[in-house]
Amino acid sequence: MARKSSLLKRAAIAVVSVIAIYVILNASVSRSLPSSSDLPRQLIREDDDDEGRAPIQPRVRVYMYNLPKRFTYGLIEQHSIARGGIKKPVGDVTTLKYPGHQHMHEWYLFSDLNQPEVDRSGSPIVRVSDPADADLFYVPVFSSLSLIVNAGRPVEAGSGYSDEKMQEGLVEWLEGQEWWRRNAGRDHVIPAGDPNALYRILDRVKNAVLLVSDFGRLRPDQGSFVKDVVIPYSHRVNLFNGEIGVEDRNTLLFFMGNRYRKDGGKVRDLLFQVLEKEDDVTIKHGTQSRENRRAATKGMHTSKFCLNPAGDTPSACRLFDSIVSLCVPLIVSDSIELPFEDVIDYRKFSIFVEANAALQPGFLVQMLRKIKTKKILEYQREMKSVRRYFDYDNPNGAVKEIWRQVSHKLPLIKLMSNRDRRLVLRNLTEPNCSCLCTNQTGLITSI
Amino acid sequence: MARKSSLLKRAAIAVVSVIAIYVILNASVSRSLPSSSDLPRQLIREDDDDEGRAPIQPRVRVYMYNLPKRFTYGLIEQHSIARGGIKKPVGDVTTLKYPGHQHMHEWYLFSDLNQPEVDRSGSPIVRVSDPADADLFYVPVFSSLSLIVNAGRPVEAGSGYSDEKMQEGLVEWLEGQEWWRRNAGRDHVIPAGDPNALYRILDRVKNAVLLVSDFGRLRPDQGSFVKDVVIPYSHRVNLFNGEIGVEDRNTLLFFMGNRYRKDGGKVRDLLFQVLEKEDDVTIKHGTQSRENRRAATKGMHTSKFCLNPAGDTPSACRLFDSIVSLCVPLIVSDSIELPFEDVIDYRKFSIFVEANAALQPGFLVQMLRKIKTKKILEYQREMKSVRRYFDYDNPNGAVKEIWRQVSHKLPLIKLMSNRDRRLVLRNLTEPNCSCLCTNQTGLITSI
Repeated sequence: MARKSSLLKRAAIAVVSVIAIYVILNASVSRSLPSSSDLPRQLIREDDDDEGRAPIQPRVRVYMYNLPKRFTYGLIEQHSIARGGIKKPVGDVTTLKYPGHQHMHEWYLFSDLNQPEVDRSGSPIVRVSDPADADLFYVPVFSSLSLIVNAGRPVEAGSGYSDEKMQEGLVEWLEGQEWWRRNAGRDHVIPAGDPNALYRILDRVKNAVLLVSDFGRLRPDQGSFVKDVVIPYSHRVNLFNGEIGVEDRNTLLFFMGNRYRKDGGKVRDLLFQVLEKEDDVTIKHGTQSRENRRAATKGMHTSKFCLNPAGDTPSACRLFDSIVSLCVPLIVSDSIELPFEDVIDYRKFSIFVEANAALQPGFLVQMLRKIKTKKILEYQREMKSVRRYFDYDNPNGAVKEIWRQVSHKLPLIKLMSNRDRRLVLRNLTEPNCSCLCTNQTGLITSI
Repeated sequence: MARKSSLLKRAAIAVVSVIAIYVILNASVSRSLPSSSDLPRQLIREDDDDEGRAPIQPRVRVYMYNLPKRFTYGLIEQHSIARGGIKKPVGDVTTLKYPGHQHMHEWYLFSDLNQPEVDRSGSPIVRVSDPADADLFYVPVFSSLSLIVNAGRPVEAGSGYSDEKMQEGLVEWLEGQEWWRRNAGRDHVIPAGDPNALYRILDRVKNAVLLVSDFGRLRPDQGSFVKDVVIPYSHRVNLFNGEIGVEDRNTLLFFMGNRYRKDGGKVRDLLFQVLEKEDDVTIKHGTQSRENRRAATKGMHTSKFCLNPAGDTPSACRLFDSIVSLCVPLIVSDSIELPFEDVIDYRKFSIFVEANAALQPGFLVQMLRKIKTKKILEYQREMKSVRRYFDYDNPNGAVKEIWRQVSHKLPLIKLMSNRDRRLVLRNLTEPNCSCLCTNQTGLITSI
């Protein structure tokens, strides 16, 4: 009997311990019980979310096409062949290194999506392997690299690389895809950072979200910041690692680049004429070369302000070189559009001047000379805080921001896709456009 | 000694139980550990989110102005005075009941934001009490009720209510607000569901997000589905509570309403001429009255299809009356825009016919007579599944959807606000617009 009671006592102790522990753990756990919505993609979709919790937008699902190599790695090969880097086609083109240039976004986005998803968990988008699950479709064509394969070189026999043929081939391949045809390309995303990228096939791909540097070569019905995403160039000048300050920045205003440009770029030669006699201004004509790049790096790292005039199109890599150099951009490009402008207020570190005003003799230099060191340091501090947005290597940088901007397009893409399918013929004289307009500002300078 | 060993045994059992329980609970808990981001507003903001988890968009913060009563409750009072409901101004106007009409969205949105936040946790937006914390500003003006205060009645002495004066007063009040001036109204949301609402002050409020039924009275630079939100009318016909089916729907096509309308509405009289001799079609001229509303309810609840022609403007309450009646909408309104079209594919329960085609004798009735019962039941089932979107009383209905659409506007609003402030003068001949365009579809009917 005694033995039995001792057994009972032990059991009782065990049970009491269990209950005590359960109560303690339960109290601490329930305060932080998660919804399963934190697990990548198993996020609870909005439409079946439970009343009691804040709706959590799911990550946008992106399917990346497995494009034929001639639109991706094959272009690296062609680029190398054209420069005598390799003599004959390589066995495994995926071993080839993507060359450095101003529009490397296409390589970084392609590489990002090729990472295992477990390494991409902070991204606003999630890659899906089944197109039927996708919200959006990414077309990883190296459209900017394609433009510079021959880049001024005589087309050697056998290379015969043609960007035009690549463009035609791409759009034919796309138009053969069921998923492209389903919404006439509206839910597709195509990199076209070089302002001349895809120029021959724009009308056949204009429904897609284009990743562009500006709209210089696009008609209003082909491109806009409502439909498309403005992306940064990949800066070619090295990051300035020094501290903020003006001591080592004895130049007031620096520019080095092509003096003669078309269209909006005509302002450059006029600016040269107005500025080249100013003592504290360095304004030099120079075309792209390794040596000039070193000189530009030095110039930007030792100047307070960097002149950013329009080129053939409103944007130029120079803006991003200026920012990573902590050289305050002086932007003279009336039609410029800027990356990530929903989260970046460029006036905090740049100065915008209307072209005609900038050309008035003495206007720019007198304005800049009046700017106090304190203000310049403010500009520099702000540039330091936004530099990551323009850094394609930064995990919290350009790639993530571009996907965030792409993900914001989804509601309008879905609306347009549904609308296109039920929209009956309208006797319209102009394209049927839905717009976001700005009143004409009388702004001459943003200071 | 024995006693000591028995004590040791009991302690051991207790410890072992504790460890066993800890291991079991730990395994089950860690699989579902939440981020604190589930808690309303304490959601972790994107910019300081921790690398390891999917970015969770925070709920958009909305500040609702405490408008002078003459823009809200005072209008209910005026509406009642004009109808002899009350003889003299009421002590506490907030006790007055908002009258039923086609554009009650303004009341439902106002009431929603006046609820305690704890009752609004499923909403895509969260109300903030400090304007400095707000992403967006809601202007709760009863702009549609204001239009119908006098509604055809002779303006009685003393009432002298004037919608125009209300509009002028509103925009002057708004232009006196610091938060309106900060971004020239871009981050403001204003209900204007009646197509004639705010017509006198549109150019002074056009930067704001307007909640509209259509764009019939708005220029492209004043309104578009890129900037604004298309919202449903409040249906005036009672919900059809019966089962899906055609047995009790002996009428093929039903219409009751004003035969004579301006602009796009001229199609109505032409449709009357084409349809009034068809046996299985009921098409009756009738203006708004309680009795006609009962007849329309009966007609819609006993017809397979409901004719939805354009009116003075492309939209009409009739579409939403048709949907809640499970009467398949036959839409003859080429320029119609539709609420929530990013999440609703209207072709699944409506038929769109281009106006000219619809006017060909026999075209509509022959098309409708060929539609099999099976297809009609499909349309009805789909209407049942989307009815909640058009129900302002449903917690998961129109109010929540409108706020979701408003929240999607935020990135473009922020972009435009930053851009407006740095955009220098451009010598443009037309408004500076950024658009989303549709190719002209040759669609005659969506079937």
